[in-house]
Amino acid sequence: LVEVELLTIGKELLIGKTVNTNAHWIGGRVAKLGTMLRRVTTIDDDLGEISSALHEILSRSPDFVVSVGGLGPTPDDMTLKGLARGLGRDLAVNREALSQVKGHYGPSVKMTKARRKMAVLPAGSEPLANGVGTAPGVRIEEGRTVIFALPGVPREMKSIFRASVEGELRKKAGEMGTWLVVLNLQGVFESSLAPIIAGAKRRAPRAYIKSHPKGREEGVSRVELDVTAVSKTKTVAKEEARSVAAWMVPRIVKAGGRIASSRGLE
Amino acid sequence: LVEVELLTIGKELLIGKTVNTNAHWIGGRVAKLGTMLRRVTTIDDDLGEISSALHEILSRSPDFVVSVGGLGPTPDDMTLKGLARGLGRDLAVNREALSQVKGHYGPSVKMTKARRKMAVLPAGSEPLANGVGTAPGVRIEEGRTVIFALPGVPREMKSIFRASVEGELRKKAGEMGTWLVVLNLQGVFESSLAPIIAGAKRRAPRAYIKSHPKGREEGVSRVELDVTAVSKTKTVAKEEARSVAAWMVPRIVKAGGRIASSRGLE
Repeated sequence: LVEVELLTIGKELLIGKTVNTNAHWIGGRVAKLGTMLRRVTTIDDDLGEISSALHEILSRSPDFVVSVGGLGPTPDDMTLKGLARGLGRDLAVNREALSQVKGHYGPSVKMTKARRKMAVLPAGSEPLANGVGTAPGVRIEEGRTVIFALPGVPREMKSIFRASVEGELRKKAGEMGTWLVVLNLQGVFESSLAPIIAGAKRRAPRAYIKSHPKGREEGVSRVELDVTAVSKTKTVAKEEARSVAAWMVPRIVKAGGRIASSRGLE
Repeated sequence: LVEVELLTIGKELLIGKTVNTNAHWIGGRVAKLGTMLRRVTTIDDDLGEISSALHEILSRSPDFVVSVGGLGPTPDDMTLKGLARGLGRDLAVNREALSQVKGHYGPSVKMTKARRKMAVLPAGSEPLANGVGTAPGVRIEEGRTVIFALPGVPREMKSIFRASVEGELRKKAGEMGTWLVVLNLQGVFESSLAPIIAGAKRRAPRAYIKSHPKGREEGVSRVELDVTAVSKTKTVAKEEARSVAAWMVPRIVKAGGRIASSRGLE
């Protein structure tokens, strides 16, 4: 499988100010390609942290690293400086990036130091056009790993991800399909499901089966049971996930559970 | 400052199924103690990942590690096994934990292998009572670091955090107060704020100042500017944050910005 690691950068993610919805969104997009994020690392806007986190991630040799946050004009935006330090590369104004930044502000706005900073990239980088904001994304090759640095504003991150990241990930991953069956169960303890899940995993080792306790309502315990399959096509993945669910259902009923509802998700 | 690292465990966090609201909540609670999470690491339910992530975290010698998720009865709940492997400790039934699990189910429910598993802890652990669910939390001392393992169900995580984690963190952190001033600005580019923020940081190096671009509405650019201060008491923190904001406001106005609204948050 293609290995992808995510590095989310920003104090607001560590102090309970901002929920890391960027990690959630990227995780979903990567999962749809038939692989999954191997790890998400969240760190402060701090040069030492950025460069050492990058080192640790590169030591695991993933195919891709996606960093999110810290590309803007303010002093706490220091991702590119941190990545450059981690890679042992110099920073320099990138002509293409500078023309993108200038194009965003238009000819009447002065190119201050803060604005020019968004075009100062690690040597050997390629800027990725930001269709909906100022700071370009950045693509850097380092050995067998491709690093993408994206801005933290969700709208800008998503736009650059769709335009310049997803295609390269998909090409590496090959075409894959995923299917998720969600069963909402009542009247069965998660602990009673454990041996049934273990049995299903022995039958279908590649399926991902996970139970989520949802508490009790009116004295009846509720559990959500997810079965995910990944395969070469969506049709095969759907068949696999459904077949695993179909094997479990009578055993859940035998253990006293009721299938309150079920649904399939792409 | 007291160093706290968070390890959130669960495939659902990596595949875009679940937003990591646990990290957000814990980050906020830790920030209120006057320190902050140093790093959040999110990994899969996988023994190798759990034990190697723990190793890496312990190599940074934090005061506390909080792990969240993977304490339940199902096969994918493998946090305690992974932590035990990472620590080189054996797993064994903990008598106190077993009595807590038995107490939760009541005398009429059979103690199956899956249920007993929730009382199988790394050697030398202390169970932390779970007032609202089944799986006890776990406290483990390793050298200078205290590790807390909490369940992933938010209600249970919060209950054990409040009852058994927060007090020990507060004791180590000492009494501190924090204050956040939020300024909502209009008509000013983030890039024009950059030199003002840099000036404020030189004046008040301990304050945390960060701008968040909020896009444009009716052609007017909007930016949220946050000023956070941490001090020995809430009163002093409030004075510090307000004084930094008061220094910035006339400079923002001079740069063409308008203060649309401001508020203070504890």
